[in-house]
Amino acid sequence: MNGQDMYKLAQRLFPIPRSITGKGVRDSLAIIKEYVPELEIHETPTGTQVFDWTIPQEWEINEAYIEDSKGNRIIDFAEHNLHVLGYSEPIDKYVSLEELLEYVYVDEARPGAIPYVTSYYKKRSGFCMSKNQRDSLKQDTYHMYIDSKLKDGFLTYADVVIPADSEHPKGKEIYFSTYICHPSMANNECSGPCLMVALIDAVKKMKNRKYDYRFYIGPETIGSINYLAHNLKTLQDKMAAGFVLTCEGDNRVYSYIPSREGDTLADRVALNVLKHHSKDYLRFTFLDRASDERQYCAPGVDLPVCCVCRSRCAGYPEYHTSDDDLTVISPEGFDGSLQVYTKIINALEYNENYKVTCFCEPQLGKRGLYPTVSKRGSYDEVAAMRHLIAYADGKRDLLQISEKIGQPIDVLIPVIDRMLSESLFEIV
Amino acid sequence: MNGQDMYKLAQRLFPIPRSITGKGVRDSLAIIKEYVPELEIHETPTGTQVFDWTIPQEWEINEAYIEDSKGNRIIDFAEHNLHVLGYSEPIDKYVSLEELLEYVYVDEARPGAIPYVTSYYKKRSGFCMSKNQRDSLKQDTYHMYIDSKLKDGFLTYADVVIPADSEHPKGKEIYFSTYICHPSMANNECSGPCLMVALIDAVKKMKNRKYDYRFYIGPETIGSINYLAHNLKTLQDKMAAGFVLTCEGDNRVYSYIPSREGDTLADRVALNVLKHHSKDYLRFTFLDRASDERQYCAPGVDLPVCCVCRSRCAGYPEYHTSDDDLTVISPEGFDGSLQVYTKIINALEYNENYKVTCFCEPQLGKRGLYPTVSKRGSYDEVAAMRHLIAYADGKRDLLQISEKIGQPIDVLIPVIDRMLSESLFEIV
Amino acid sequence: MNGQDMYKLAQRLFPIPRSITGKGVRDSLAIIKEYVPELEIHETPTGTQVFDWTIPQEWEINEAYIEDSKGNRIIDFAEHNLHVLGYSEPIDKYVSLEELLEYVYVDEARPGAIPYVTSYYKKRSGFCMSKNQRDSLKQDTYHMYIDSKLKDGFLTYADVVIPADSEHPKGKEIYFSTYICHPSMANNECSGPCLMVALIDAVKKMKNRKYDYRFYIGPETIGSINYLAHNLKTLQDKMAAGFVLTCEGDNRVYSYIPSREGDTLADRVALNVLKHHSKDYLRFTFLDRASDERQYCAPGVDLPVCCVCRSRCAGYPEYHTSDDDLTVISPEGFDGSLQVYTKIINALEYNENYKVTCFCEPQLGKRGLYPTVSKRGSYDEVAAMRHLIAYADGKRDLLQISEKIGQPIDVLIPVIDRMLSESLFEIV
Repeated sequence: MNGQDMYKLAQRLFPIPRSITGKGVRDSLAIIKEYVPELEIHETPTGTQVFDWTIPQEWEINEAYIEDSKGNRIIDFAEHNLHVLGYSEPIDKYVSLEELLEYVYVDEARPGAIPYVTSYYKKRSGFCMSKNQRDSLKQDTYHMYIDSKLKDGFLTYADVVIPADSEHPKGKEIYFSTYICHPSMANNECSGPCLMVALIDAVKKMKNRKYDYRFYIGPETIGSINYLAHNLKTLQDKMAAGFVLTCEGDNRVYSYIPSREGDTLADRVALNVLKHHSKDYLRFTFLDRASDERQYCAPGVDLPVCCVCRSRCAGYPEYHTSDDDLTVISPEGFDGSLQVYTKIINALEYNENYKVTCFCEPQLGKRGLYPTVSKRGSYDEVAAMRHLIAYADGKRDLLQISEKIGQPIDVLIPVIDRMLSESLFEIV
Repeated sequence: MNGQDMYKLAQRLFPIPRSITGKGVRDSLAIIKEYVPELEIHETPTGTQVFDWTIPQEWEINEAYIEDSKGNRIIDFAEHNLHVLGYSEPIDKYVSLEELLEYVYVDEARPGAIPYVTSYYKKRSGFCMSKNQRDSLKQDTYHMYIDSKLKDGFLTYADVVIPADSEHPKGKEIYFSTYICHPSMANNECSGPCLMVALIDAVKKMKNRKYDYRFYIGPETIGSINYLAHNLKTLQDKMAAGFVLTCEGDNRVYSYIPSREGDTLADRVALNVLKHHSKDYLRFTFLDRASDERQYCAPGVDLPVCCVCRSRCAGYPEYHTSDDDLTVISPEGFDGSLQVYTKIINALEYNENYKVTCFCEPQLGKRGLYPTVSKRGSYDEVAAMRHLIAYADGKRDLLQISEKIGQPIDVLIPVIDRMLSESLFEIV
Repeated sequence: MNGQDMYKLAQRLFPIPRSITGKGVRDSLAIIKEYVPELEIHETPTGTQVFDWTIPQEWEINEAYIEDSKGNRIIDFAEHNLHVLGYSEPIDKYVSLEELLEYVYVDEARPGAIPYVTSYYKKRSGFCMSKNQRDSLKQDTYHMYIDSKLKDGFLTYADVVIPADSEHPKGKEIYFSTYICHPSMANNECSGPCLMVALIDAVKKMKNRKYDYRFYIGPETIGSINYLAHNLKTLQDKMAAGFVLTCEGDNRVYSYIPSREGDTLADRVALNVLKHHSKDYLRFTFLDRASDERQYCAPGVDLPVCCVCRSRCAGYPEYHTSDDDLTVISPEGFDGSLQVYTKIINALEYNENYKVTCFCEPQLGKRGLYPTVSKRGSYDEVAAMRHLIAYADGKRDLLQISEKIGQPIDVLIPVIDRMLSESLFEIV
């Protein structure tokens, strides 16, 4: 799958009205399962206690609008699913402009956009519109109408494990997590699942995978908490490195948000790859966390999870508004994310402690690995190889060597293959 | 006690002629005991061996002056007690100007001030005056007169321990040390004891103190060596953090002088508090030490003691001259030092390893700790709380968390109180 | 031996045609043995396996030239021994200009100089000349003539150990390694052996040496590999610090090339000395290694060896060309290197963990170590002494204290002697 394919999938997912539970999530996962037949769908019932949280009811919404006294629909949920405050209770009421405004949410800082607003933990009814539209409303009698209901049901999520296929599997997992719970937003919603589908496709095609690869998708926050509540021990036992996929479709500079300690294998490989892939990537701190790394890195959970994305979640102008539409993402943006994560996966698969099998420098000349005419500069022609050998002491892993010698992993991989085939390296 | 009160006490202490032993110290301690009735006065006899040192004799001085041939008193000890070389032997001699100058000490770099000069370890007689005055002396016959005597006696010092009053006392002490041994100098002498009196007053009023608080006052260098010789094991066993109080009354930028290793609890709390209290504080190294941290941090003693002051001791222009008078210090200067040390004490009392009691983020919404309407920016409104929770892993203490999340301790204290009352935190 | 003496020795060594084995090395070592009678000469036979390498044959060359059709010698080995490709096979052939050029090596970047080129691991015949000369050659018939032969023989090298002479020898060695294998090049060949001879002379004159001093000289790369193959265990057991001597005769800024980890005693003393000796020294990384530190620091060998030189080997414009002649080096250049290594040796000999024998500061006054008149500034007059005492905790070695207090070792050595004689310091 390439960037074009990912973009097309995003176009299919974008219009579906989603919330943290219910039909929107189910419909979205059904589309994804078309691409990933191995995907397993799971459901957790309303009311289930998951750590400090409780699985909420499903929110069903059929219709919602505001009409003026002439019957013109000022806003209509059918036109844009951000027009209703998430989790709104039903309402059917004729009100003055003054009263209406108590039910209306706008984003003052982005006057042309409909904001994304929810009220999960206090019962409310409400509507969202652009500040510009609100400011243009005239004195009138308005009809507020929401046909919604909250009912017991399930929280729906999915996962799949693509197992290792090498002769010597590591018995460890690489983990990818993304979310599906927001209404029509493109970068901060659809982009993560689209990249995940492409990564599953790529992993399935890899030969000699040493790692198992686990992919999870569900609602943000409550979904990852639920997944952790059901799988904490497995994840803690098996995860070697994990990544939150979010905001992967725009074509801006790359961003890195570390795990809580910032020193896990996930962090190390992310930083190593980003540094060589793009000089101007942005390095954030855990204080800038905004997505499910909040749960994976919480005290007691302590999983090695970080986030590599394009624009940082919560850090770009269209975030959580109707402006986060299909123009924000692009095939090029997706391709960049896919390249980075492909390099991350390759680096992880090759990240061993290599040890040179002889004392002193090996004699490269007799193996045809050194220029036969030795003159000023000969030595530098094979610098990456010689530096790799010089640090292959069995104590450092490949990522550490790469940092030390300033050479990207993808330059070192062919050298490693050659050294292994010459029996000059062994894996410790 | 506030800055005004401290300044008034400084005015009382300033005129007393002090040396490292004898009446001046006794009179000064008697005044301090008026404010701190619990203070215990101790005396160590002349000749007592304390580590590599010996308790010296008491120096008694009744009168000292230089008269010209017409009987005019050029300088008079009664007028300013810096006019005599500290520890001078008696003299009664008529001399030419040339010979007189062999007995006269001036500070060439500060021509208008009388310098503070002593000769503890070689027997001398001498006088101090301003360079300007010395340069104006004419040919004449001068009468040098000092009525002093050295006699066996005592080194006098005082201490007090204000015990913890919480249900779970830590059994550890916070230590404060200051000195009283210089003649009339305001910042580099009187300011330390005045701040100490205010701190004792504040500590006595604190509720639920977990720590014991020990306060010591005596002559600089020989006094702290003597105190260590008598109390080394207790201090080493019990001291959690200690601070040398010196030069606390001027209103210039704050200074920090670390302990020898610079990594003790005292250092950590001092740096944390200063950073947030005043952006332009000066951070010195142990090479800049000048007061009793020299003894507390000596090899083998190794106590966790640093120094937080206003102008660094030995580092301001009026230091060790008659210009270090009551105009150098001010109620505002004292108030600043008191604020800083109050923050230090509060930070120490709250500096525990807190651990969040649930896996993943706690559900703040249901406890009224998160905005019920969730929109762009909601998350940032409670940043200090969320960051504190995210790092409350039981492995870091509060100071480490404060450093990590960039929030001052006094902002975190109310959050901690709330988390404890919600049972979301436990103390490890 | 001073710089002049070293320069004179370099003049003797310069003209000898050398290769990695054979007569040139033997003749050079014979000259060196005149200065160091203790030197032991060793030989390893052709064909001996040393780790991943094999001792090569000896290359004997008697005559080599190119003549034009009129019998003019275009180049002649007798005139400059760089004119022949190192390890050339015999040839005796009349060729056109076009064919001749296939046998000619030049340095395009340095058009006036004859480059130093070898072909150890593929059999070739070849000539080296300046680019300018090559470009001036006209169409003609040329006679290429090389009278050389490869024959079984030996690799020749030498070493000597000057033992400790103190009452309490450390049983550890300081190691110096240099090489002798290049034809006429002055800085990147002759300078190392010359400095080594001067160091042997200096070490023999030192009193109370605590360390043994081992000196090795042989061909670069294959020589040190051979030496390691024969002495690895001894070197690993005994070496405290080692140094590669190369490019020690020019008068440019000093250079430091670290060991692989950069944290050995050799690295620490080198950096400490260089920092105080010359502010503008160049600090390289192990990626810039170019001489036998490549072998000493290889994985599994792991010896504490770094390199302190003037111009970095492989990093100066005349390197590996005929321009690296006796004008590149100078008595002044040699003197600088000798000074630095003398300071390194002194620092190593004094590098103990000193511990002050009393609690708190010692009373310096009664020992005449502190000004008897104490006034502003007295304290700073003895700063180096006081700082040394303050950090003499028995946990830091002298190098660490020097770093901490910013004082060069040669300033501290007399203080240490005094402290030891006063019994204020003990060696831990």
